[in-house]
Amino acid sequence: MRNLTMLTDLYQLTMMNGYFKSNIHEDILVFDMFFRKNPSSGGYTIIAGIEQVIDYIENLKFSEEDIDYLRSLNLFGEDFLSYLINFKFTGEIYAVREGTIMFPNEPIVRVKAPAAQAQLIETAILNMVNFQSLIATKASRVCYSANGDPVMEFGLRRAQGPDAGLYGARAAVIGGCVGTSNVLTGQEFELPILGTHAHSWVQKFPTELEAFRAYATTYPDKTMLLIDTYNTLESGLPNAIKVFDELRANGHEPLGVRIDSGDLEYLSKEIRKILDDAGYPNVKITASNDLDEYAISTLKSQGAKIDIWGVGTKLITSSDWPSLGGVYKLSAAMENGELVPKIKLSEDPQKINNPGYKRVVRIYNKTTNKAEADLMMLADETIDESKPLKVFHPVYTWKTKIFYNYYTKDLLEPLFIDGKLATNRYKVKEIKEYAQKEKDSFWPQYLRISSPERYKVDLSEKLWELKNDLIEMRKRDQQ
Amino acid sequence: MRNLTMLTDLYQLTMMNGYFKSNIHEDILVFDMFFRKNPSSGGYTIIAGIEQVIDYIENLKFSEEDIDYLRSLNLFGEDFLSYLINFKFTGEIYAVREGTIMFPNEPIVRVKAPAAQAQLIETAILNMVNFQSLIATKASRVCYSANGDPVMEFGLRRAQGPDAGLYGARAAVIGGCVGTSNVLTGQEFELPILGTHAHSWVQKFPTELEAFRAYATTYPDKTMLLIDTYNTLESGLPNAIKVFDELRANGHEPLGVRIDSGDLEYLSKEIRKILDDAGYPNVKITASNDLDEYAISTLKSQGAKIDIWGVGTKLITSSDWPSLGGVYKLSAAMENGELVPKIKLSEDPQKINNPGYKRVVRIYNKTTNKAEADLMMLADETIDESKPLKVFHPVYTWKTKIFYNYYTKDLLEPLFIDGKLATNRYKVKEIKEYAQKEKDSFWPQYLRISSPERYKVDLSEKLWELKNDLIEMRKRDQQ
Repeated sequence: MRNLTMLTDLYQLTMMNGYFKSNIHEDILVFDMFFRKNPSSGGYTIIAGIEQVIDYIENLKFSEEDIDYLRSLNLFGEDFLSYLINFKFTGEIYAVREGTIMFPNEPIVRVKAPAAQAQLIETAILNMVNFQSLIATKASRVCYSANGDPVMEFGLRRAQGPDAGLYGARAAVIGGCVGTSNVLTGQEFELPILGTHAHSWVQKFPTELEAFRAYATTYPDKTMLLIDTYNTLESGLPNAIKVFDELRANGHEPLGVRIDSGDLEYLSKEIRKILDDAGYPNVKITASNDLDEYAISTLKSQGAKIDIWGVGTKLITSSDWPSLGGVYKLSAAMENGELVPKIKLSEDPQKINNPGYKRVVRIYNKTTNKAEADLMMLADETIDESKPLKVFHPVYTWKTKIFYNYYTKDLLEPLFIDGKLATNRYKVKEIKEYAQKEKDSFWPQYLRISSPERYKVDLSEKLWELKNDLIEMRKRDQQ
Repeated sequence: MRNLTMLTDLYQLTMMNGYFKSNIHEDILVFDMFFRKNPSSGGYTIIAGIEQVIDYIENLKFSEEDIDYLRSLNLFGEDFLSYLINFKFTGEIYAVREGTIMFPNEPIVRVKAPAAQAQLIETAILNMVNFQSLIATKASRVCYSANGDPVMEFGLRRAQGPDAGLYGARAAVIGGCVGTSNVLTGQEFELPILGTHAHSWVQKFPTELEAFRAYATTYPDKTMLLIDTYNTLESGLPNAIKVFDELRANGHEPLGVRIDSGDLEYLSKEIRKILDDAGYPNVKITASNDLDEYAISTLKSQGAKIDIWGVGTKLITSSDWPSLGGVYKLSAAMENGELVPKIKLSEDPQKINNPGYKRVVRIYNKTTNKAEADLMMLADETIDESKPLKVFHPVYTWKTKIFYNYYTKDLLEPLFIDGKLATNRYKVKEIKEYAQKEKDSFWPQYLRISSPERYKVDLSEKLWELKNDLIEMRKRDQQ
């Protein structure tokens, strides 16, 4: 396991040192991680990367070399550096279960810990959860467009560095991909890996036919041939069919053909016709080449005969929206034994955080089991499910809704309590299944790739009043 | 050093196995890595990531666990797995020096190695060079807009995973940033790291004034205060000036203020005026908040009084163009002791590769020392610099140019020969200086951020003819 203790912003360390010097580094602070917009202007976000946060927290430790390096910066005293030598996380972290669908402004991760600790871990938590949630969500959108067809993740060569390939492929599978080309991801996370051959294989041989034949000899029961090296319809496909015939004569059935260029709609229809006529209705057509949810959606609406989709660059980088803008904001601080809610003002009302030590509950319809709204509330508030539940819009407060036939679920679950792991660990396979259940629990209007309906996320009356009181108080302070 | 041997696409391993079974895995192949478009529709690309390619190649080794994992896939025989146990790179790699400016279709990395080896390393080389070149280029564009003002890289929390933060910050410094907030990058690559405090620091204290005072007490000679937590002009700045006065009374000079929200043009002008009037003309104004080369360019043209730029998300993800589309294409194969040029056809003429074992030379004007054009040629071609040199456009061949007063430089340099390291290793500081020299060697029309002039990249007559002959030959083959 890699130790990523130094994967942080310098200001976390200078603040830690400042807290230490003021002897307030053990004061308890509460931070919420949340984001303000769903990626790709979509209707939802699938949270991923939580397991990596656990690994990170469990491995937090400054090495001797780290301390020596920090000493060399001439920013820190020896007393602070000694404190770092013994540093470990002793606080509390709650987070949503990995694979959960979340919405803007909802706490995804809630940290309650001594000031110095809570500060150090901000950057890495954001880095891990921002990226994997981004890619899981993108993959979910791509798979939604593919409408049940298998989607394979192929983007390692264009990923933003090794980890982006490794964890991006992991997140893509969580979001719905059937597998990845990335061998390391397959190995580390026990996921299906996929791949056959490249153009270079075809070029290496004197002729395309010989190249195909050699591939079929190597993998007689797994023959998927890339047919667009020279000319898809005039050379690649006829040569592939010759080899398929040879395979069949020897008792093997070919799996498919793959195209990676050209007009995928036209080519796939032609290929399908020719394959069917040649007696290969079960041979699959795999296509790749700059695909994303929009391209797949268009191709499907045009009736392209593509069975399997290989998606690379645009998935692994979420190219139309390459970052989830998750932030980590102070929401409360322990003062004289009580958690005091904290707020940060902003000219932009959207950027004012929800103060306090909070929970998030999801309201489900008892008959359909579909999610109907989320409610953020203070942690000590309760809901009496035997009574109707009234919620209101946090800005247009006259917009209200009353639930009668409902039940609720808490979304934040313990990850660490008193610095100790307080959750089961989940395999990617389980997280993927959980994400699928999550998607099944929402009506399709929230999941569609363009112009989705906005899912309701409301504040409890108590939280809403607290927020407004704090804004007023801060404004008075400035006068 | 991390072993990234398994960071590859499965099809590399299935092809290797296929070559092995056909007993052609030791046949020598030549691959070129090149890209087809400059990022952000710009005029150039700064190549970065070469040092990581060296580390990767030097650490190539399949572990016992790797072999066990591959065995479990039921794709490979024991003879091939035994071959992998002893696998190491024994071939030749040439690459441009890290920090070199390159253009579409030019070989950046040239691999000549046994087929199985050349294939395995494709994915990781592309991953590393694609990403770091992308970010170095983006940083160069951002710094170009800042026109000499210091630019700091702040993007770790939004980077696409830990490595994207680590190596992205490295590349950003190569491209021109003065430093990064990323502590790990500072430690691993001996780079300046920067940072002061966040909004949470201000919120932690009962008042903003107390927070500023505590920070100034901790770092009396490095006081840079974030003044936009509550209200920049009405609270943050007056409180900062109070603390600056206290600092000065104690013999210290403050460094600056930072703003991270609001209208940066208006606020910076107001802040400058107030700071100047208060006797702090040397206090710097640092600004951040969704900046990139376009935003900085506009703010500067409006006369914003910003001295230092903090650039995060849009730099570390190259958000408007989040991948460099580098590819790795077979260009030659050893057959009967001779390197035979190879081509891949495509409906799209832009996608037809330049065949053969090639070099790239840059033509400089002897008087100005500015680069005038690049010429791709076969490796055994020479240039007689005592004679005029005529080049022609590879598509519009009637467009020609003759150089008289020139000298040339080979861009591809040895990285590995016979599997052994054949280059000096460079520190990031040296690479950054080299990249700056590279920029100085081009006229500004190629470097500007919008609508740049297209730099000439031509083919030698011999290479041009070879390419056309091969295209004709391949077309005849299909008839």
